[in-house]
Amino acid sequence: MKVLLGSGGIGTEERRKLCMDEMSRTFEGVSKVLFIPYASNDHDSYLEGAKRFTSGAPFDLVGIHDAEDELDAIKEAEGIYVGGGNSFLLVRDLHEKGLVEAIRDKVLHGTPYVGISAGSNVACPTMMTTNDMPVVLPSSFHGFGIVPFQINPHYHPGSILWKEGDEIIHHFGETRARRIAEFHQHNQVPVIGLFEGSFLRWDGALATLVGGAAEIFSVGDTPLRVEHGAMLDGSLTPR
Amino acid sequence: MKVLLGSGGIGTEERRKLCMDEMSRTFEGVSKVLFIPYASNDHDSYLEGAKRFTSGAPFDLVGIHDAEDELDAIKEAEGIYVGGGNSFLLVRDLHEKGLVEAIRDKVLHGTPYVGISAGSNVACPTMMTTNDMPVVLPSSFHGFGIVPFQINPHYHPGSILWKEGDEIIHHFGETRARRIAEFHQHNQVPVIGLFEGSFLRWDGALATLVGGAAEIFSVGDTPLRVEHGAMLDGSLTPR
Repeated sequence: MKVLLGSGGIGTEERRKLCMDEMSRTFEGVSKVLFIPYASNDHDSYLEGAKRFTSGAPFDLVGIHDAEDELDAIKEAEGIYVGGGNSFLLVRDLHEKGLVEAIRDKVLHGTPYVGISAGSNVACPTMMTTNDMPVVLPSSFHGFGIVPFQINPHYHPGSILWKEGDEIIHHFGETRARRIAEFHQHNQVPVIGLFEGSFLRWDGALATLVGGAAEIFSVGDTPLRVEHGAMLDGSLTPR
Repeated sequence: MKVLLGSGGIGTEERRKLCMDEMSRTFEGVSKVLFIPYASNDHDSYLEGAKRFTSGAPFDLVGIHDAEDELDAIKEAEGIYVGGGNSFLLVRDLHEKGLVEAIRDKVLHGTPYVGISAGSNVACPTMMTTNDMPVVLPSSFHGFGIVPFQINPHYHPGSILWKEGDEIIHHFGETRARRIAEFHQHNQVPVIGLFEGSFLRWDGALATLVGGAAEIFSVGDTPLRVEHGAMLDGSLTPR
């Protein structure tokens, strides 16, 4: 398997370059990549933006929403890229259109997959560790399950701060660690909180952390900080 | 109707005092308040904490989870208090137990209601403007609908900042305003983003903002900042 899952938050030049390098590495030898824009409301403009972003890459994007038959487009895809946006919207549409199994099968059989932010959430057993707002109700929270753990993208440790003028204000809402602990009151699957700008390469057995740090949460264990270059098995145990 | 909806985030002495004052005002003349702890996993310890918090108030709390029959407990309640925690958990349990209609009817017929954080989300037409993580899948996102607008609790404007050692780091995840705009791509109901420490008193026709600021989002309008003392109608138009 050849899977790349990104946290998102690539708001700096350095992070954008790493993202492009990692995507090109994952899609090596692929000329056309099927782009899935369902995490956004406006599929055409999302495809245009994604095309601009990847214009320097050695592959072209085609939008699944432009295909005559979406299932055929998946079956014929050389590579699949699921962009970020709203995970509830993405997962609702994938289930409504009956595409979840088809994408899972393709990726398990070797078709390279890149997911960023919501595209990482949907690669997990469920989308339950998303940060997004539930603006629509999906029929199921199940994702592709092409990795055996959960990802919390855009992860950051500690509390939220925000700025009013020059004043830094402390926010009392739940930290990510607290939210993930709530997840673990109801679910046993381990969770990796990917710092913004970080990526996981997954080959079906081992994950390699690239570009930044992450925090690992397993039921009954204290959280574990890992850094760029860490190798993790499917239970998120460092190797 | 006598409804008090709080943002939560009452992490300062001043905010806790205001919260107690507003709760006592809403529950004036009520000796026993029915406490609904379903937003938390541990109902007993949540009730104990809520009792400690309200120990100086002129009313006592009884937990709905200790009642022989929950529907009877609601029918007999003099006041209802729904505490914060995880909105998905809260809404799942309320629907599973068949309590949504009963609470709506009681409150529409005059029983005072206090909701904080998740307890504010569930008072709205839907829980779709929560910030919580979807750790369980409810059968429906519908709430009590005892107010005709949506609340985003723990609201803050602008981006998230976080701290690593002494360094303040800029987070690139979606702002609340962006998330609410996503909600408005799929739903028409106006949204009020309640800053932490702020409360809305609702009498069935007019809302009064108490304790802090809020931001109002209506489809097609630019967001509107309102301050302590603002009066709003059911469409969140200032009066």
